[in-house]
Order: sequence, then C-alpha cells, then structure tokens
Amino acid sequence: MIIDCHGHYTTAPKGLQVWRDAQIAALKDATGPQGTAGPKGPAGPNGPALQITDEEIRQSLEGAQLKFQRERGTDVTIFSPRASAMAHHVGDATTSLHWSEHCNDLIHRVCTLYPDNFVGVCQLPQSPGVPPDTCIGELERSVNELGMIGCNLNPDPSGGHWTSPPLTDRCWYPLYEKMVELDVPAMVHVSSSCNANFHATGAHYLNADTTAFMQFLTADLFKDFPALRFIIPHGGGAVPYHWGRYRGLAQDMKRPPLADLIRHNVFFDTCVYHLAGIELLLKIVPIDNVLFGSEMVGAVRGIDPETGHYFDDTRRYIDQIAWLTDADRQKLYEDNARRVYPRMNALVGRGRQAGQAGQVGAGQAGRHEAHVRSE
Amino acid sequence: MIIDCHGHYTTAPKGLQVWRDAQIAALKDATGPQGTAGPKGPAGPNGPALQITDEEIRQSLEGAQLKFQRERGTDVTIFSPRASAMAHHVGDATTSLHWSEHCNDLIHRVCTLYPDNFVGVCQLPQSPGVPPDTCIGELERSVNELGMIGCNLNPDPSGGHWTSPPLTDRCWYPLYEKMVELDVPAMVHVSSSCNANFHATGAHYLNADTTAFMQFLTADLFKDFPALRFIIPHGGGAVPYHWGRYRGLAQDMKRPPLADLIRHNVFFDTCVYHLAGIELLLKIVPIDNVLFGSEMVGAVRGIDPETGHYFDDTRRYIDQIAWLTDADRQKLYEDNARRVYPRMNALVGRGRQAGQAGQVGAGQAGRHEAHVRSE
Repeated sequence: MIIDCHGHYTTAPKGLQVWRDAQIAALKDATGPQGTAGPKGPAGPNGPALQITDEEIRQSLEGAQLKFQRERGTDVTIFSPRASAMAHHVGDATTSLHWSEHCNDLIHRVCTLYPDNFVGVCQLPQSPGVPPDTCIGELERSVNELGMIGCNLNPDPSGGHWTSPPLTDRCWYPLYEKMVELDVPAMVHVSSSCNANFHATGAHYLNADTTAFMQFLTADLFKDFPALRFIIPHGGGAVPYHWGRYRGLAQDMKRPPLADLIRHNVFFDTCVYHLAGIELLLKIVPIDNVLFGSEMVGAVRGIDPETGHYFDDTRRYIDQIAWLTDADRQKLYEDNARRVYPRMNALVGRGRQAGQAGQVGAGQAGRHEAHVRSE
Repeated sequence: MIIDCHGHYTTAPKGLQVWRDAQIAALKDATGPQGTAGPKGPAGPNGPALQITDEEIRQSLEGAQLKFQRERGTDVTIFSPRASAMAHHVGDATTSLHWSEHCNDLIHRVCTLYPDNFVGVCQLPQSPGVPPDTCIGELERSVNELGMIGCNLNPDPSGGHWTSPPLTDRCWYPLYEKMVELDVPAMVHVSSSCNANFHATGAHYLNADTTAFMQFLTADLFKDFPALRFIIPHGGGAVPYHWGRYRGLAQDMKRPPLADLIRHNVFFDTCVYHLAGIELLLKIVPIDNVLFGSEMVGAVRGIDPETGHYFDDTRRYIDQIAWLTDADRQKLYEDNARRVYPRMNALVGRGRQAGQAGQVGAGQAGRHEAHVRSE
C-alpha cells in the first residue's frame, strides 16, 4: 500500500470560496455579523450557508486527486484543507474557528464519500496573538467526531510576519498535551504570506520548514513530550541539503546527534520535485523518519520537460532509486505513516491491499492497472 | 589558485567589540553622543577610539583563517566584516554608518597586511526603514579608497522581522546602479536575528538565501540591470535541493528557465557542509554559477566525527567528486570568482600561482606544502 501523507483539498468546489469571501466581506462590513454561518448551523441573516453538493465534491476529485492516485499507483492520501487558504491572519479567532469548521467538515465529507482514498487531517483555528489552546476544541471535534488522524499546525499564523513564539515555547504546551492524549501528530505547515518578501510556495513554506527544524534542534521539547510527533513537509525545507551544517551546529551547541534528536518525533515528507533531491533526502535522513508525500494537487502543477512527467509525481523518483531495499520502501510508503498517524490503522486496513506490501517498488503494474481498467 | 569567496572576520581582536559595546551603550545613554567615534576620527568625549594594533590583527588571523588556508590548500579569501555582527537593526542609520566604517577600515587593514591572502568586501550601513541609497557613500569609499571588490547586502536589516521591501523593489535601484557602475557584486547576507523564531545560522541565514532567490525568480530585476550580480551564500539556501520545485514554479508562472534566469546574475557558493549536499549542488546548478566558498571561520566550527575533518573544509568534499572535470574545477575555484568579482583581477594576479591552474583538483600537494614548510 502507498500512503501519500501530504495532500490538500486545493480543488474544492467554488462554494467554499464563496462562503469565505462572504465571511471576509462581513468582516469589512461593520454592520454585518462576523462569521455569518455558525459552526454547523444555517446562514445568518447577512451571509450564505456553505452550499456544496456531494456531486460537486465528486467532480472536484475525480479529475484531479483520484485520477492522479490511479495514474501514479498510490492508494490513500492523508487529506487536509488547502494550506494556503487557512490564512489565519484574517479576522480574529472566531473568524478562524468558523472557517476551520467549514473546511474540516468538507474534508470529512470527502473522506466519507471516498473512505478508501482519503483520511482526514484538520485545520486548526489559530489566530495571531491568541493562545494556541483555543484550538483544542476544534482538534477534539475533528478527531473524535470527524475521524481525523492529525492536524496541520501553523508556526506563523501572522502570515509571514513571524510574531508568534517558537514552536518550543510553553504557550503551545496545552495543545501538545491534547495531541499526545489523542495520539495525533501535526504537520508543520504555514499558510499564505502577506509579507511581500516571501513568496508562499517558493519561500515561506520552505523557510517555515527550516525554521521549525532549528527550533526543535535547540530546545528540549521532546524531553517534555516524548510522544509528540511533527511532520516537517516539503522534504524538510533546507534541512537535508544542509544536514552537515545541522549536525555541526548540534555538536557545537552540545545538543544530541540529529538522528537521536528526531528519532521518535520529527519526520520529513518526500515533497521534493526532482530525482537528485529525493536521492539526497533518502541517503541522508534515517529512513524511519521519512514519509512518502507528493502534495498533489499543489504548489507545482506542471509537467517537467526534462522527464515528461509531473514534477510532483514523487513516486517516480523514489522508484528510480535502485539502492532502496524492499524493507525501506515498505517503511517509506506505508509503515512510517501508520506509525506517525496511528489512528489511520482503524480506518485503513492493511488487509485490503494484502500481498502488495512487498511490491511497492515494483512499478505501477498489478493491482493499480487492474484498478484503472475497472473504472 | 583557489579563491574562497566567503569569509568573515569572525576572529577580530576584542577592541572591535569594545568599540561596538561603547557605541551601543552610548545609544542607551541619552546624555551621550550617538556613535561616539566619527567616521575616521578620534573618540568623542564619551567614547573610545577603535584601538587595535597590527600585531593583534596578525594574531587574530595566524591561528585561524591563515592557518586554515595553509592546511586546506586555499589561496585567497574574499573577506568581509562578521555578518552576524552587522546588526543593522541596532540604532539608526548613523549608528550603522559609523559601525560599518570601522568594520570596513579594519578589513582594509587586514588586506593591507596580507595582500596575498585577503581581498576585501564591505559591510553596508543599512538601517530598517531607511532608503538603501544612503549606503552609496560607504560603498564608494570602500571600493574607491579601500580597494574593496564587493559588498554584503542585507535583505532584512530589521534582523528577522522582514520589514523592508523585497530586493526587487525599486527602492534598491539607486544602490544597484552604483554597484553596476563600480562593477561590484553583492553577497546577499543577513545578520543576526532578533526574532525568537529564527536561529541566526540555522534558520535566518538559509531562509534569507531561499527568499532572495524566489524574489529574483519572480521579478524582472535583471532585465533592468543585466550586469547586476548577486552571490547567494550557504549553497543557495534550500534552492538547489528544491531545484525541481523552482523549475516547476518558474514554468507555472511563465518565467524563464532557471538556468537562463540566473546565468549572468545569480551565483551560489559551496558553503554546504557535507559531501552529499555539495554533490547535489554541483550536479544540479550550472557550474558557471557556483563559486567556491567555505565561510571559515564561521557558523560551524567543529570536526565532523564521521570524517575526522572540519565540517567547513568544503574543499575536501569538492575534491572527492570524481566526475568534476579539470575545467569545472578551474571555474569553481578561480575563474567564476574572477568573473563575478572582476576588481579582484587588479589585486590578485594569476601569475603568482602560474602553472597551478590545471592542478586545483590534485589534492593539497605541491605549492601549498612548500608554502607551509616555508612558514
């Protein structure tokens, strides 16, 4: 089985943005109520309810994420609301709560319609300057009521101004306690940038990944929370490329060796869009700390003229690396994701794909072709 | 000849910090004059002059940068004031001017004492919220009077709050016009971070590199300034590792192919502290756009227990890469630096090392051993 740990609902039906636009318009209109629709209730007098049909959801996925799953031979995507649209800097904590609720409810509908293809991860209702423990309620609702297996945690809810304390600050601890209690990890993922210096997907995302890693390196967070787990996406930002720098910094600062420091707590995905980058990642970072991911349909949508394949078809790069063992591939494609997101195990059985586990490196033949033919 | 394009005076005699401490203390003391020492004059009534002897300068270098040049078999270091100490966020533009003048004068003294070993690059007196054209005077002085061949340009003089416009904004253009007129490049280099999110050498530096590259990718700066040249240090931040991402983003945004976009204008150094990272850099980025650099004595000062050698001995990694041709090494070690910093040619002749050019990949034998023996 191949689990893609990093997918966002970037193709959501337009009704979602209609709702969001109305919410933002209401913020600007002092006479209107803020967050026009209640958590799960109907529209307020001045705003629309979220209007999206199941058919619209199906259409939004069939030609995109589901099509790519079939073509690329991946099975399940860990699926969350569109990261760039979280925009925690818009409005206040109530704005963020209402928006998060709608986004998370929509992910839940996707996972209910396609339980074999998607498992959910929630957006948190963060807001700049607001203590992160205000997110606990929505995290509990998402996990306990919507069956979600993790959350996306924004280390910079200001959107590029970096006004919050580091992820190792104690203000985050109540949220971390709840994550540990629920046994869910967080992917460290910023949203859009409202700082002109930072292009979102070309700078802000990668900077946040690099920044979070160094925060983890310099503090004793995982002594306080041995079971806390973070996925640093986009291949870990700059970190694997500069692994020697980080090993050296850790040594100079009398910190533990990197492999020990990250072992049970910090994981990278494989969202690196060329073979040489993926090779470096898998050569340098312990295989137990890497989860397969593609972020499709995401930051880079085109076809690489050098290969004739989609840049974000990350499985192709991995399958080209001959020195990976079958055991490595099994960890990378399935086992690590199940270990980091253990709630997945109750939702996605291994049995469904029995007999495939040892063959994940064998190209895209077999079950997947049969699957495509049966569509 | 091996030119190291990236060295800072991190070992400056303590008199420099004494002066800086007094300057900062005077800032805090409302009764004292700000910037107690004038540009090149004696101390004001409440502050000390910069007191450093030639012997102190020699001592600060002999056991450090000069020792490593000899041991590692490199010849000339492009040398600038300590980056983390620029701290443009301290005080105002006058503070920054006085501090920059002293730092640049000190680099000039180093280059005068050791003309075969160091060529100078200046610090600019940037200050948050102040138009960059206020730096033109010190740039001209450094180049025309002190013989400097380039400058370090801080894309974030706020020290981690990123309050300035992107490097592609027109507010930078007067400075760029002067750089082009003087035919000097800039290394894009931030200073210390006063944002708790960003560890300086483990996050802020690399983030700035990544950020600057994406700024260059998304604008037409080099159409306006075809001769403008930037060195993005620390191996280009996250960029080479994510080269596929950037190629894909450029394609999605209808920008030129990366190799075309950077050809005459953007260069990376080799400050990547492990073999796999250097291999990726040299495999992915056109060789004409990479300059040898080590940043010694800099961010990472220890010995790698995996190799038994200094992390920042970047020549060792390059010399291990068998597929580099002699022509590649000649570009990487010398020719690219001379092309990007052309004022170097008047200061450092090729003749001095005649006959060595083709042998830069041949290890540390020959001239360098003789050089060490003659000490």
